[in-house]
This record gives sequence, structure tokens and C-alpha cells, in this order.
Amino acid sequence: MDKSADTKYPIETLLQKRWSPRAFSDRMVEPSKLHSLLEAARWAPSSYNEQPWSFIIATKENQAEYDRLLSCLVEANQAWAQQAPVLMLSVAKHHFERNGKENRHAFHDVGSSVENLTIQGMALDIFVHQMAGFDIAKARELFSIPEGYEPVAAIALGYLGDPQTLSEQLRERELAQSDRKPLEAFVFTGSWGQTSPLLNS
Amino acid sequence: MDKSADTKYPIETLLQKRWSPRAFSDRMVEPSKLHSLLEAARWAPSSYNEQPWSFIIATKENQAEYDRLLSCLVEANQAWAQQAPVLMLSVAKHHFERNGKENRHAFHDVGSSVENLTIQGMALDIFVHQMAGFDIAKARELFSIPEGYEPVAAIALGYLGDPQTLSEQLRERELAQSDRKPLEAFVFTGSWGQTSPLLNS
Repeated sequence: MDKSADTKYPIETLLQKRWSPRAFSDRMVEPSKLHSLLEAARWAPSSYNEQPWSFIIATKENQAEYDRLLSCLVEANQAWAQQAPVLMLSVAKHHFERNGKENRHAFHDVGSSVENLTIQGMALDIFVHQMAGFDIAKARELFSIPEGYEPVAAIALGYLGDPQTLSEQLRERELAQSDRKPLEAFVFTGSWGQTSPLLNS
Repeated sequence: MDKSADTKYPIETLLQKRWSPRAFSDRMVEPSKLHSLLEAARWAPSSYNEQPWSFIIATKENQAEYDRLLSCLVEANQAWAQQAPVLMLSVAKHHFERNGKENRHAFHDVGSSVENLTIQGMALDIFVHQMAGFDIAKARELFSIPEGYEPVAAIALGYLGDPQTLSEQLRERELAQSDRKPLEAFVFTGSWGQTSPLLNS
């Protein structure tokens, strides 16, 4: 299944073919691939090189750990994410290590890091689907995530699966093309809302 | 100059060679390349596909607009960023379009979007350097950024320049290898702080 983005301007294949599936194959992700995904996350840029990201990871090779992470997801996400062989939780550190001040970009930089991981995944046929729908307090408790750190997103990843395994409603979404606002709606020059003339150059 | 990351596990070249320079060439970035960078940002994933990112962009081809954006940076950043032919500001929308609820992942998703842009840049020899150091209130005022939207980061981008153009202190940082925490410090399984056995598999 190819859901490559219908781009107006050319972008790298790794970026163009990325999307967030719900149907995952039960094929386990090789440890070497997980290492590369995490390594990619590691080298993301961050404010003052703080690297405010941490990850909790569980695979189906350790079912108890996997089920613990799965139990943090809202039911609607559990329904499909339980197909994925690997689950993760991204976590942000709120304050800078070096001076204790609030890191305004903690969530931002976790986003950069997971995007790096996601793009590395595309090079290895591993697809990533992030979820906002999980129980933050439960995750904090089950994994003893300390104060000063905050669970950010749940992540399912693995090889693409068969959309036929999904409910009808989810299958429709799985097969639909993804879309985006046009650049004109969010690239401005001079003043807010004023579409940049650079888009026409 | 090659500052490729000293990775423990293999990652994509686009990710490995990325870093945040301060010395930029005065060569203008071609409009077609800017289009591809912005298009890459456009196709990032986001919570409920909200796409909470906007960008203000200015190039040296419009000096007045460029200077306006430059004036938002703290002096220490102006010192080097004024070499860059293109400056941007990323902006996050705090609430969901569809229901007005707070978007907990607004900054996170802006981070993903700019990382996409950054990686696209690496495919086109365009380097990106994000800055936390800018005057948020001034940016909001100068560009009439409305309530509900928040300036996130300033961004300088362009072709690599000559480190000799930098002050001695900045030149040293420019030439130094970048580093990161080991994966063992932030990839956990089972409980917070418990290094994942998957790293040894």
C-alpha cells in the first residue's frame, strides 16, 4: 500500500512516503533496526543540546512489559495498537539539567527527536504511529516516571500490516489519502496572515 | 567541513550529517529549495492532523523584512545569524481548530514539522539552526501574531559558510564535534531509569 503524500513541491522519499498506519504486521522488528531508530532519535537537535527526551519501550517478546504499556492507551487506540510489535512512550524533561530553569522547548524537542526516529524508520520499512490518546497519570504511575518529567505521546511501530484486519471504520481511514493545508495558509512574510510572496517566486 | 554524528548504530546519512552551524554562506537559497523545505514541513505528522505550525519567513532579498525578523533575535544570535540568507520564525497554535480544546502537542508538533524541514534541507545542502534566544513579545508585536498563537523558535538557514568569519569563541564551537547522551541513559523498559535490555540484544 502506497500512501505517499501528494506534494506540491518535491521532497525526499523518506518524508513523502511517511504516514501513520493502524494495521501492523505481527513480524517482530529486528533489534538492529530498533537500535538505528533510537540512535536517530538520539541525534536530533535540541535547545542548548539538552536532549530532553526519554523513551519507555516494550516489545511483544516480553508480553508482560508490552501489556503494561498497552494498558496505558485509551481503548480506541488499544483496539488497533495491540497489533504493533513494539510500543513506546516518549517523555519530556521540563527543566534544564544545567540550571534548573524551565525548558520552554521540551515538548518541541521531543517532537524533533521522534520525527528523526520516524524518518529513520521509513528507511527500514518501519512505520510509526504516535498517539495523544493515553492515560498520562497511569503511565506515570506504572513506570514510576518522576516529577519534572512528563509523558508526551504513546508510539506504536512495526512493519505495515493488512488493512483488512481493521474495523470497517478504521479501514476506511487507513485507505484514505492524507491531506494538509496549503502552504499559503501558514507561510507568511511581513505580517501574520499575509501569504509569503516567496511561495510565488 | 564534515561534522557527521559519531553514531553507535547506523542511521540515514541525512540524519547523520545534520548539525546547526553559525557560519553561513551569503549565497541565496534558491526559491525552489525553499519550496521543498516548506513542503517537507507541511507533511509532518500532528495530533489529529491539526498542523498547528505556521512560519514567518524573510530573506535578504527583502532587506527590510529580513531586518525586522533579525531584530527579534537576542544580540548574541544576531551576531552570527545575520550571515544567514534566510530567517524564519516558527509559531504554534494552542487550541484545536475543530473544538477549541487545548492542543497539548502544539509545540511538539511544531518540532516535528521543523525537523522535517531540516532533514529536507540536508538533502539540498541547506543547513538549519534553530534558536530559543529571541524576544517573543517583540516578535508577536512586529508580526501581529494573534492571541492563541505563540512564537516558538527563530530559525536561520542557508548554505554552509566559512568558520573563519566567526568570533574565536564561536569558531571553536563551530569546529567542535557534537555529542549526545548514550542511549542507555534515556531508553528504559519496565521502570523509569531501568536501561532497556533491548539495547543489548
